[in-house]
Amino acid sequence: MQRYFLSNSQFQDDTITIGGEDAHHIARVMRMEEGSQVYCCNEEGKTAVAEITNFTNEAVTLHIVKWIEESKELPIQVSIASGLPKGDKLELIIQKATELGAHRFVPFNAARSIVKWDEKKGIKKVERWGKIAKEAAEQSHRSVVPTILKPVSFDFLLKESKNYDYKIVAYEEVAKTGEMSRFANVLTNMKPGESILVAFGPEGGLTEKEIVLLEEYGFIACGLGPRILRTETAPLYVLSAISYHFELQGVK
Amino acid sequence: MQRYFLSNSQFQDDTITIGGEDAHHIARVMRMEEGSQVYCCNEEGKTAVAEITNFTNEAVTLHIVKWIEESKELPIQVSIASGLPKGDKLELIIQKATELGAHRFVPFNAARSIVKWDEKKGIKKVERWGKIAKEAAEQSHRSVVPTILKPVSFDFLLKESKNYDYKIVAYEEVAKTGEMSRFANVLTNMKPGESILVAFGPEGGLTEKEIVLLEEYGFIACGLGPRILRTETAPLYVLSAISYHFELQGVK
Repeated sequence: MQRYFLSNSQFQDDTITIGGEDAHHIARVMRMEEGSQVYCCNEEGKTAVAEITNFTNEAVTLHIVKWIEESKELPIQVSIASGLPKGDKLELIIQKATELGAHRFVPFNAARSIVKWDEKKGIKKVERWGKIAKEAAEQSHRSVVPTILKPVSFDFLLKESKNYDYKIVAYEEVAKTGEMSRFANVLTNMKPGESILVAFGPEGGLTEKEIVLLEEYGFIACGLGPRILRTETAPLYVLSAISYHFELQGVK
Repeated sequence: MQRYFLSNSQFQDDTITIGGEDAHHIARVMRMEEGSQVYCCNEEGKTAVAEITNFTNEAVTLHIVKWIEESKELPIQVSIASGLPKGDKLELIIQKATELGAHRFVPFNAARSIVKWDEKKGIKKVERWGKIAKEAAEQSHRSVVPTILKPVSFDFLLKESKNYDYKIVAYEEVAKTGEMSRFANVLTNMKPGESILVAFGPEGGLTEKEIVLLEEYGFIACGLGPRILRTETAPLYVLSAISYHFELQGVK
């Protein structure tokens, strides 16, 4: 069943009103009719089954059939801080990491980021990232769309990190020494509802100076196994492992 | 340090001879000189540090400095059987799953595969897949390049499955019932050196009939968490979880 992410103002008592692109999608793309049902998620991530009662030129009106209980979200909030990579790699990260349950994206300008952020062109890019995240959230049946910050400075990342319960940084040099247990130890200590910020370098990796600063701010440098993962693969590894740990192994 | 995957015939006592594309890569792309060192892996996945001793127009000669002990491979052998997906999704699966430690790829024609396999054009495609796997293995510092079969029939997949110690199939309908523990249970039962075949549907998923047949052949239908993963994301989840389970949690 199709899923739409709506703002709270679209919900009024038992009635939902959908306009704009979503209305176009319902009427023209999906060619739904009166009586068709869809999932509607509000800003808190609560999901209602709703039935279409009326079409006008501008909007679709729906009636809430029932609110459903479902937990499609990871029990911990995972924020992905990627050192700005080249090309469209961040798009792949956002799409796949959203499917895998990421809560927030914090791209940052790393010392070895080759791409320089263009404030003017950047607005369009951030909009595009938001669209990718929304589509991936719908497709994977999530009840929350992750938020995406426009790229921040490394200093901002350090300050921002104080808002998280746990902070780790993926660092292959740690993996080379055979250190493998830190990431698993962090997850074992975490409780449902807590938050974690995970930092990743761009293609060339983080500099030693950046690692030292991150560690000063309480980031734990973790290895992700003996193989060297690309900058766009490492976040997918981390999110998959978190899902496996909390959702499949049932370690709560 | 650069890594090259060679055939056993290129090794003779303490000398290695490299021709063709790899020689071009060493001499022209990397612009190495006499005295430069590289990693050379043989067909058994053993890795030598070798030093360049001579260049000719056609070949590079190297002297083996030492054989090194390293274990970059997952302790269990994971084969990925993907229902043939659309477009270049299998390329993404092969690249990322190779980074994450896959041992073998078995693409198969699923009932809902939209792509029809063209035997003529197919040869080029399989060659391209092999190249992607080789590059990803080099980049991620693996000591083995995964093998890739040309797409097989569903019947072949069923027969082939008898050669594996464990067989699972990712099935989202199982996940919807809240079943979450089967995959973790399988991993807990597995011992180093054992093999597992993991089957995934194409975009439209596997049919009920296919699931029934797979189960008759001993496949265990497993959910991969509450979110719906795309056909190209699910194999990456499975491999990441396997690495986390065996390499990071140290469950041996």
